[in-house]
Amino acid sequence: MRILGIDPGYGILGWSVVEDTLKLVDFGVIETSARSALPERLCEIYEGMKKIIEHYRPGSAAIEKLYFSRNTTTALDVARCLGVVILALKQSEIEYSEYSPSQVKLAVSGYGKAGKGQMQTAVKMLFGISDVPRPDDAADAAAVAACHCLSLPSARMRKSGF
Amino acid sequence: MRILGIDPGYGILGWSVVEDTLKLVDFGVIETSARSALPERLCEIYEGMKKIIEHYRPGSAAIEKLYFSRNTTTALDVARCLGVVILALKQSEIEYSEYSPSQVKLAVSGYGKAGKGQMQTAVKMLFGISDVPRPDDAADAAAVAACHCLSLPSARMRKSGF
Repeated sequence: MRILGIDPGYGILGWSVVEDTLKLVDFGVIETSARSALPERLCEIYEGMKKIIEHYRPGSAAIEKLYFSRNTTTALDVARCLGVVILALKQSEIEYSEYSPSQVKLAVSGYGKAGKGQMQTAVKMLFGISDVPRPDDAADAAAVAACHCLSLPSARMRKSGF
Repeated sequence: MRILGIDPGYGILGWSVVEDTLKLVDFGVIETSARSALPERLCEIYEGMKKIIEHYRPGSAAIEKLYFSRNTTTALDVARCLGVVILALKQSEIEYSEYSPSQVKLAVSGYGKAGKGQMQTAVKMLFGISDVPRPDDAADAAAVAACHCLSLPSARMRKSGF
């Protein structure tokens, strides 16, 4: 089964598609211009999500959970963006799980407060790749997808040697 | 021209359709069940908005601006809801304006801190109706649509006797 990892963002949304066997299929970002108005940008994010879903047909999704920053305007903008992302997933009947940044770090690197370098090393090892996905938003999306894979019963069995 | 007034909400979203001549065409609410999951509710709000837009063909929209409460979870939920509302408007190329609660109160009743009773009286007078739209969310949507009408150049000319 394919998993769609999403690092939600308003100006730049990172995405990754991975097999639940921890094979990285593809990754990228949806970027919207700061010069465009909010409705235009929401439309671009929605249309971008629909295209990714249609192309890769993921069976489920994993979203990095929005944590509440001090900048409430940014938080509300990201929440609006998340509204259209969740709509696009639901319209294709794709269920999603949300994971906090520390959950992702713990699952992927074994340490809930892992730094950027530790996370990059862990992502490369997990997927057996030599280069970290770029930009960072796509790498974060790969990490949250990996976190979701590792939470699946099949992954736990593999890790236990079954 | 018809104006779609929207009082955004997650459990209950008020809407109203008015002519820019301050004639109340119709009003109602989109309600989603607290028993349904978020994606389901976002879908219902989006589909409900699409139906209203298709049926009444508004030329523009007016949204009561989300003001930031202490309950950040609710604020984020409403922002997600607003994301799909704005998407539905944009997909039909309907531009919208946002008005704060005090802007609506000032424009409709002449007093930025008007109470509920004063606002109800003002809405009835403005639209020349004997009963206030119910529930309150629909009345709030009628008020924000009225606020938008009154900000249009044509309305200002009418008020000045042109």
